[in-house]
Formats: sequence, C-alpha cells, structure tokens
Amino acid sequence: MELWFDEMHTPNVRLGFRIKRELEHVRSEYQDIHVFETYDYGNLLVIDGTVQTTERDEYIYHEMIVHVPMLTHPNPRRVLIIGGGDGGAAREALKHDPEEVHVVEIDEMVVKLSKKYFPGIARAYEDPRVNLHIGDGIEFVKNNGDFDVIIIDSTDPVGPAAGLFEEEFYRNLKNALRPGGVVAQQCGSPFYNPGEACKARSELQKVFKYARLYLAYIPTYPSGMWSFVIASDEVIKRRRDTKFSTRYYTDALYDSSMVLPKFVEESCKD
Amino acid sequence: MELWFDEMHTPNVRLGFRIKRELEHVRSEYQDIHVFETYDYGNLLVIDGTVQTTERDEYIYHEMIVHVPMLTHPNPRRVLIIGGGDGGAAREALKHDPEEVHVVEIDEMVVKLSKKYFPGIARAYEDPRVNLHIGDGIEFVKNNGDFDVIIIDSTDPVGPAAGLFEEEFYRNLKNALRPGGVVAQQCGSPFYNPGEACKARSELQKVFKYARLYLAYIPTYPSGMWSFVIASDEVIKRRRDTKFSTRYYTDALYDSSMVLPKFVEESCKD
Repeated sequence: MELWFDEMHTPNVRLGFRIKRELEHVRSEYQDIHVFETYDYGNLLVIDGTVQTTERDEYIYHEMIVHVPMLTHPNPRRVLIIGGGDGGAAREALKHDPEEVHVVEIDEMVVKLSKKYFPGIARAYEDPRVNLHIGDGIEFVKNNGDFDVIIIDSTDPVGPAAGLFEEEFYRNLKNALRPGGVVAQQCGSPFYNPGEACKARSELQKVFKYARLYLAYIPTYPSGMWSFVIASDEVIKRRRDTKFSTRYYTDALYDSSMVLPKFVEESCKD
Repeated sequence: MELWFDEMHTPNVRLGFRIKRELEHVRSEYQDIHVFETYDYGNLLVIDGTVQTTERDEYIYHEMIVHVPMLTHPNPRRVLIIGGGDGGAAREALKHDPEEVHVVEIDEMVVKLSKKYFPGIARAYEDPRVNLHIGDGIEFVKNNGDFDVIIIDSTDPVGPAAGLFEEEFYRNLKNALRPGGVVAQQCGSPFYNPGEACKARSELQKVFKYARLYLAYIPTYPSGMWSFVIASDEVIKRRRDTKFSTRYYTDALYDSSMVLPKFVEESCKD
C-alpha cells in the first residue's frame, strides 16, 4: 500500500509526497494541522492542506527570509518574528548575535508540534534570548516597539494571516521599528499569484521609502519559485558580510535574488 | 471523473497535472511519447514519463537555454541545436538574426507531434533559415562544423541522450565550433541530481577554458530549480544587449542566474 499526501497548488496541479505515516493530525483553535513522516523530505508540517516546512528543504526558506533583512541592517539587536512558530526563523536570526528575538505565534499548537517533530528547527526555543509570545501579531505590533528587524513569517494571506498583508498593519510595523529598521515578509509564488507579491510591495512602498522583492528556489512550495519583500527607510543593500555557515544563502545571492524575471516585473505593472 | 498525469520526480515525490484528455500516445523508435491537454498548462509533452514542455511555461526553458549562450557570442551566424525537436530553441535563436539554425533531432516523431500540438513552439520550422536534420547529434558533430553557438537541448542523461554528457562528445563539439564559439547544455535539477550539473561542468572544463553553471525557475521540472552549463574558450560574459522582447530573460538575469546557492557549489566539491 502506498500513502500519499498531495498539496493542491491549484485545483488542477498537485505536488505529492509519499509518506511513511501520519505522525499527528490536530484541529487547533485556528487551523487544521498535519505532521507526516515522508520518504524523501523527512518530517513534513502541513497547515490547512498547505506545505509549511519539511526537514529537508526548510533551510532555504528560513535562511532567505532572515539573512537578507538582517544583513540589510547595520547592527540588529532586537528582532521580532511574526508567525514563525516552528522556530526556524528564530534559529537563523540567532546567528547574527542579537540581544533579543521575539516570536509572536498565534497558534500554540504549531510551537508544540514543532518542538516534538522538528527538533532541528525548534531548537531556537532553547536559547534564552528567544522569547515566545502566543498571540496575534497584529495586536502585538500595536503595543510593542523598538525593534531593528521585523520578519513576517506567516501562512498565506487567507485565513488568520490575511491582516498581515494590509497597509494598516504595515503602518503599525513601522511604528514598532527603531529608525533605520528593516522589514521582510514572505509573499507567495509569483508564478501562480503574481498579485500577492506586487500588492505587498506596493502597500509597503506607501509606508517605507524603499521596498524590493526577492526570490528563492523552494522545491516544496508551489511552482518552486518563492517571493519575499523587504522594506526600509534606508537604501536596501547589504551592510555586513556573513560570518556564519549557510546552506543556501551567500552574500553574492543577496543581490542576485533581487533580480527578477521579466514576467514578475511585468505582472506588477498591471 | 478526474484524470491526472503525475510525473515521478523520485519514487516518493510526484508532480501532477489534471488533464482534459490524452491527445496522443505514440511509441516511437526511441521513446514513449504522450501529449496531454491539461487544465492549467495548455498542451503538455511527456517523453518516457518525463515532462518535456508545456505551452504555459516553455518560454522560461527556451529563453534561458538560448539567450545566455547567444549573447555570450559577439555575433552568432551559424547555430546548431542538438535535440530541441519541438522547435522552441530554434524559435528563440532566430531572434538573434542568425544566418542558419540547424536542428538535429534523433526522433522525427517529436517534430511531427510538436508541429501538430505545439504550433506556438514549432513555428520556427516555417522559417527558411531553420534546417532540420533527423539523426544522431553525436554523429552530426563529427561530420559538421563552423558553428558559432551549439545548444544541447536534450532529454536527461539516460536513454538516447546519455552520450551527450561525455568528454568525447564535448571534444567533438569543440571541433565543430569556430574560434570563440559557445556551448550551452541543460543539466537537470541541482536539488535532486547535483552530480549531473557538476559532472557536465567538470567534463566541459577539460575541453574548454571556461565553463559555468546557471539556473532558472521552471515550475514544471523537478524541484523547480533547473541548471544549464555554458562553456567557451573566451571569457563568459554578456557581449550584446537584448533587442527583442522576452518573458523571463533579462540582461540583468544573465549575471544573476550564474550566482549559485551555496549547496549547489558545495555539491560540486565532493
């Protein structure tokens, strides 16, 4: 017998993983969460039918959502991660020797399952500089501040994450940043949803002086092409060299990841 | 009823396309060929169970395998395409106003089906500068020469294409090039098969002074990350600006596509 989990990238396209077993299936207060043990990708976290992270390729997403904004800041001391309950973004942020990393995850179940099934990702929580807040990121940024870098490591802009892609939220983000602060956010597949990335960039451009899209190859996400947006009131450029080891990110990729295929730029003009 | 074609990227990972109908299934002298009409990707050509081309995303592969080597050459007059029976590489090569484009396809059935089901790709054959040769590319390069650019647009290095990834073939390629000639070849997914790209580059480096890998996002190929190798005895750099329209390639992407993620470079050191 073969057991497969297929994510529907569209109603007519699917990416399937053969699985050894279902490790967990929980309906949390917010979402439907599965953890599978796969043959090729290690453990796999699925929320509402969407691949969130796999042990095999999680480093790509986590390195790219973290190192690009962190290296854009000259000296990030206080870091806020909205979402990111698996701990992967916090793990990468710690490589920059910050004083504090705050993770605001709405769904405690994500943290609990990550600690149990993704210890290589969730090990960030063992570090005393990492502070976990279970709550709504939208509310959190209204009441907290003095961050150097804010990373929005959320699910896609449907369901609980929808408010994380709106101008009002971005204005509150800006207020929660120190001068010269930097924001980064995941923005989905520009191949399947070009509007999502373009909208995030244009909304951020209303609030910050500079906003740019960048891309990474993520084999387990729809189309394999994933976008992020970075924004700041300072020019977006790399201000420090990387002094730690990585598996995907390189300092040369910082710039090249911001060079977009023609169709991505074109789709933003519509 | 739903009808799906799933390509097995590994025995444990599959990418599926929901199809309206099977347009054709032929066992040619060389391979097992399907043409499907899909819901999301237009018509889809499958050879030996492997996605070759879809109407929706073929431009990415064809632009990247052609424009990078063509723009590396100062003035490509005579172009050879080995494989590429669908006509897509020839179509892109014509944008550079060459005198002659020669396509050497081993399997006449690929040409026939492409003309019937992929007219937007196969329209290159209507151009009098395009010369189609049905035959073995390995033999062809032993007996023909004076090319400025040679593009190896083959299936993967198993089956009829295996000999296209070996040093002896590369030596014959070099003899078939004019001085300053440029070669490019597709090399598979560096995520699933890092050895394939690394081997092609190192074999080409035995024969040419310079060889570099470059990448493109191809949603319908395994992992979405696809590699190409380019080789020449001249420094590999862009020598001309693009004067025609593209949908993926840009002159800025020429350089950034050669900036490799860390794991790709690392895997070549093994």
